[in-house]
This record gives sequence, structure tokens and C-alpha cells, in this order.
Amino acid sequence: MHVSEIVQDLRAASGPTIVLLVLDGLGDVPTRAHGGKTPLEAAQTPNLDALAPDSSLGRLIPVAPGITPGSGPGHLGLFGYDPLEVQVGRGVIEALGLDLDVNPNMLCARANYATLDAKGVVTDRRAGRIPDEANAERCELLRAIGPIDGVNVHVTPGKSHRFVVRFEGDGLRGASVSDSDPGREGAQVREVVALTDDGASHRAAKIVNAFWREAQETLSGHEPANGVLMRGVGGLPEIPSFSRRFGLTAAAVASYPMYRGLAQLVGMTKIPTADGPEAEFTKWREVRSGYDFGFVHVKATDMHGEDGNFEGKAAAIEAVDRALPILLDTEPFVLAITGDHSTPVSYEAHGWQPVPLLVHARRAGCDGIARFTERNSVSGLIGTMPSHAMMPVLLAAAGRLAKFGA
Amino acid sequence: MHVSEIVQDLRAASGPTIVLLVLDGLGDVPTRAHGGKTPLEAAQTPNLDALAPDSSLGRLIPVAPGITPGSGPGHLGLFGYDPLEVQVGRGVIEALGLDLDVNPNMLCARANYATLDAKGVVTDRRAGRIPDEANAERCELLRAIGPIDGVNVHVTPGKSHRFVVRFEGDGLRGASVSDSDPGREGAQVREVVALTDDGASHRAAKIVNAFWREAQETLSGHEPANGVLMRGVGGLPEIPSFSRRFGLTAAAVASYPMYRGLAQLVGMTKIPTADGPEAEFTKWREVRSGYDFGFVHVKATDMHGEDGNFEGKAAAIEAVDRALPILLDTEPFVLAITGDHSTPVSYEAHGWQPVPLLVHARRAGCDGIARFTERNSVSGLIGTMPSHAMMPVLLAAAGRLAKFGA
Repeated sequence: MHVSEIVQDLRAASGPTIVLLVLDGLGDVPTRAHGGKTPLEAAQTPNLDALAPDSSLGRLIPVAPGITPGSGPGHLGLFGYDPLEVQVGRGVIEALGLDLDVNPNMLCARANYATLDAKGVVTDRRAGRIPDEANAERCELLRAIGPIDGVNVHVTPGKSHRFVVRFEGDGLRGASVSDSDPGREGAQVREVVALTDDGASHRAAKIVNAFWREAQETLSGHEPANGVLMRGVGGLPEIPSFSRRFGLTAAAVASYPMYRGLAQLVGMTKIPTADGPEAEFTKWREVRSGYDFGFVHVKATDMHGEDGNFEGKAAAIEAVDRALPILLDTEPFVLAITGDHSTPVSYEAHGWQPVPLLVHARRAGCDGIARFTERNSVSGLIGTMPSHAMMPVLLAAAGRLAKFGA
Repeated sequence: MHVSEIVQDLRAASGPTIVLLVLDGLGDVPTRAHGGKTPLEAAQTPNLDALAPDSSLGRLIPVAPGITPGSGPGHLGLFGYDPLEVQVGRGVIEALGLDLDVNPNMLCARANYATLDAKGVVTDRRAGRIPDEANAERCELLRAIGPIDGVNVHVTPGKSHRFVVRFEGDGLRGASVSDSDPGREGAQVREVVALTDDGASHRAAKIVNAFWREAQETLSGHEPANGVLMRGVGGLPEIPSFSRRFGLTAAAVASYPMYRGLAQLVGMTKIPTADGPEAEFTKWREVRSGYDFGFVHVKATDMHGEDGNFEGKAAAIEAVDRALPILLDTEPFVLAITGDHSTPVSYEAHGWQPVPLLVHARRAGCDGIARFTERNSVSGLIGTMPSHAMMPVLLAAAGRLAKFGA
């Protein structure tokens, strides 16, 4: 029997409130360059320091040892879904990042404007990174395409050469098709093909190719962006909602659309907010009465990690620490603080490393560990576990999970 | 989706060099008899002590808690193959230990000379442990057997009553047959039977039994070794090569044939060498330019563990420590030091216990832990994980693994 089935059977329909505070990319790697410390170790965090000894610590492995997660797998894990089982295509992630609605009748594609020669060979996969305005003009032209065999086509410009195409209609659910992007320059652009032998995939391949051929015709003569590459075509994963699996009515407070969008994938209510921990924590305080689960997302930690900015990442953690009393003031029965993955400053990119986890709740006990850091979390009583194992631990801390077996 | 598939999708085709130094049977159990210390704790290891604080530590579980591995599962785990999924028969292991080539068209059997009475009842399963010369004489007689239905038979003497039979021909791949060894004295020797209902297993049973009947006839009158027991019949596991799975071109530097052989199973190039860390590290330094992965094997730690020789095991670790500068001089981008399993001195045998792991690499960070020991490794930031999860961690430390998901 799978643990997720057991949880779904045992979870209560109501109970005290859980707040999950995610500092994006929180985890880091100590290096000699910064005195053998991580940004979390170096940051001045009086409020976290007051909380830590009275909490239980642990560590979360987002996917598996050595596997570096994108934001999708990172958050799905925190939301209690095994990212090895539930995969979300790049098209959907890109659509969520543009704050677009994605419904179960949609397939989303991440598309690039590209430069093709007369024979259809890709000479620039990013069309010279055309400016946003040139992108928007071309997307306006492509909006004339469709419906195709009853499928509506929604085209939305992104940054530079990137845009998103959402195909909306019947008979597309669960479709799996290849990319039209050959993945390198000097290769022929190609049609997508069904990756599974079923009606949805064959229908999807037909629709995507019809759009793509018409788009190529429309863009003919519009060098340098005279071609389109379609990638990561896919729809919503077919999974039980967060509400059904865990019995929680959840709000996602995040300033960046992608993170609200990832939360909406599992059925959370999106709550837009101004950026920064103070604004975000205040927003949760305002909206919280309608929910018994709050996912609150802070982006700055990850951004500074990606920039290789040690002081910036430490300062972002300090800003969270300063705003923390706002969250504590709401007196959540369970407060969990962690990250969706590590973004080591020394990598200037995501890393695979386990992320520290702090759970503050009467039922979680007090490990008595002085500070919440990567190193100290190794000794925490919660232990090291996959990210997707956290949700049952938080339900248990809330007293919302019944006993298994007699 | 399985982690190994993800790794195979995400791994780079080239990149910096990884060296895996395996101290066979490294892990141990602290006991009162030796002042509560393990040999690794008791050893004087100035070079390891200099490396440790600047490395990341962790622990590897070879198979599963409580499960004591043989050398085959121990090494397959380190090479990134789950030993619960990839099993190698005793016949193959025995053949590798005799430095024999094993190819995919072969089935190998570990065979014993035994004493049978007139009714075919086994009266001594080891034929009085006949001397090596008597073994070799009888193997010479058995070499006259075959080919059998197009299958060539290769007979090679081992130590005492042990020998190896390799059956080489078409139609044997994936065959699974039982043992002819009844497993106890006083029981009737028996023919092998197919364990799966397919062509390969039925063909293998026919060929093995034909060999075995002819061997019994040949040995008739050659008491005490007048019978043959066939055990552990099997071929190479059908697995993606190390090169395909991890994108690495690997050399196996080992003085003992079995360990080179285990590495060759997954496609590494065998590099014979004189015994001892100095000779082995020097050999790697000589050959390394053709490879981006070096597996270097040290045997003495295990041997002294098997002998219950605490001082000997500590001295073997000290010898590795003295030779370590030779390895460090090659400046591997990633250096991992661990064991294939524990061989606790107090057991005089292999044990199941997790094995300490040290990963030294710029991207691995510095945990700041003073010494590399079993106990200290518990606090390492890598954490405790299955041995077969180590390879992705080393690839990540080498920057040879792309991000999973968007």
C-alpha cells in the first residue's frame, strides 16, 4: 500500500491551521570562500534563533540524492506529491509563469521564435533573441490561427523569443507528443509525433502540427523570427487534489505567478501579493480566516543564490527573519519553514542538496537545537526524508492524521 | 519514473574526472575490546585528517539495513546499480575471481568436486578438500567434454575442491537453472532444472545436465573426487553499461582479479596492478589520461577485518593514508573515498553496517568535520543513503548532471 493512500484514508476533514513558509532555494553548501559558512549560518536571525530550540528540525531531499530539481518538482514535493511520479511539462510551467489559467482540457507548449533558412534548417534557435515588442507583434499575427478541429488556440508572448501556446478542446487529456525543436542549430525543424499510441496523443500531434505549419506560413518573410519551435507539450497532471489528499483548504500567497500557479495545479487558491516577506506575511494574515493551510512563498533567497550573491542571500534571509513576527502573530498551530530546493551561491544555480526543515508546533516538540541551519538540521529529530514525506509530518503535528492499523 | 532513467537522461557526455577510492570492508563497529574505537578511528591518518574538514561526509548503506552484502552487491551498489535489482550469480563471481573472461553468450557455474557413493548419494560435498594438483588433474580430464549442441565448455580449476565451468554458445542468455548440489550430505545428487519456463532456461538445463552426466562418467573411480556439484549457474546481468548510464569512461585499477572483473561487468576497463595502495595509486596516475572515472580498489582493509586483526586493519588504513598524496597529486575534480561494505573486526566477516563516505570536490563544499570516521560521517551534509545513490551525487559534484524538470 502506498503511503499517500494511507494518508488520504486517515486524514481528518478539518482541524487546526498549518502554515508552510517556503524560502525558495534556501539550502546552501558551506565553502572556504565564505569562511566555511552558508548564508543561513551567516545571517543574523534573532527571531528564527528564538524559534529554533523550541522546534523540531530535519532535512528534505527534493527528488533524490544527486538530482537537482527545477521549481516544479521542488514544489510538488513540498505539496506532498512524489516528483518522480507526478511530472509537469515545461509548457505548463511556462504558462503558469505568465500567470495564465490552465485547465484540464488544455495542452500547453513552450514555444520559441527561431530563424529558419529556405530549406527549413534552424540557423538560430532563439531568433537572435528578438525584443519583447517584436515577440508581441508576431504573437498578435499568430492569434488569427484556429480553432483547429474544434480546438481553440491561445498564443501569449513571454520574454524575448519565448511564448506559450495553449490548445484547448476535447480529446486531448493525457496526450504525450515529442518536440518540434531539433535541439540544435543546423538541423531540420520537424513535426511533432505522438509518443504514446492512443487517441489523445495522435489527436494532439495532428493539432500541434496544424498550428505549427500555419504559424510557419504566417511568419514567412518575418526574419529573423520566421519559424517556431514547439517544446514541452503537455497538460495538467491527473492527480488527487491537495484538498482531497490532505483534507486541507489551502491558499497560496506568492508574488511570482509561477509559484501561485504550481500551487493551483494541486488545487490551492491563488492569492497574489506584493513582493517581499513583509507584504506576503501581511497578505496571509489578511486572508487566512478562509483557509486551514497557507503556503507562503519567498523568492529572493533563490534569486540571490542564482546570482552567486552570498551577502544578498543572507540579507534575504534576514528580511524574512525581521518579518517573521507577522506570521507568528497569526498563531498557526503548525509553522513549517523550509525550501523547495537548494540554490548554492557557489553554484549560481539549483543544487540537489537536502534542504533544512523547521517545524514549530506544540505537538512537534523542542529538539533544543540552537539555530536553524543546514548543518544543525542533520541532527534534528525529524531526520532526513524526501520532500514529499513532509506533508504527513505536518498533518501529524496538527493532530489531523488518525492512527494506522489497530 | 525511476531515478536511474532520469540520471541517464540528464547526465553529460563529458566533463571533469571523478576518482572513487574503495577501501574494501572499510566500515567497522566500535567495541569495548578496542577502547570503543573502530580501526578507522584508531588509525593515524594525517592526510585524511587534512582532507576531511574540506570535504563533505555521509554514509552508504550497501543493500538495506541488516543485509550483509557479498563483494558483488557491495561493488554493484557503488557503481550505481541497485543490488536488489541487479544480481550476479555466484558462478560469474567465481569466474571473475579466477581472472576469466565472461561474455554475454556465457553461463558460468561454480562447481565443487564431491564424493558420491554407488547410489549417487553425496558423502562429502568437498571431496575431502582435495589438493590443488588433484583438482587440476581432474579439470584436465573434464576439458575433453563438449562442444554440447554447439555450446563450448571451458573448465578452470580453482582452489582445493572448487572449479569453474563456463558454457559458451547461442541461446543461453537470461537462462535461470537450479543447482545440482543438494546442499547437504546424505542426499542424492540431482540434475538441474529450468527455473523459468523459456527457451534459454530449458536449453541451459539440457546443456548443464549433459556436461554433468559426462563429468560423472569421466570421474568414475577417481575417488574421493568422483562427483561434481554445479551451483550458481548464471550469465552476465543485462544492464546498461556504466558508460551509457553515467556518461563516464572508466578504468578499474585493482590488484585482485575479482574486483577488476566486477568493474568489467559494467563496462569498465580492467587495469591490473601490483598490490598495495602505493602501487595502485601510482598505476592510476600512469593510466589516467584515457579516462574520466577511476575506480581504485584496496583489498587489505577487508582481509584484516576477516582475520579479526584490529591493528592490521588500522595499519592498512594508515598505508592508504601515506600513499594518498599520489592520488591527490592527480588533482581529480571529485575524489570519493568509501568502502563496498563493512567488515567489522569483531565479526571476522562482512557486516551490513553503513560505510563512511568522503567526497572531496570544490562543488561538494566543506562540512568542517575534523576526521573521516564512521561516527563523524553521521553528521555529514551528504547524509545516509543507499550505496547506489552515490554515483548521481558524484556526477553532481562534477557538474555532470543537468536539472530535472523546469
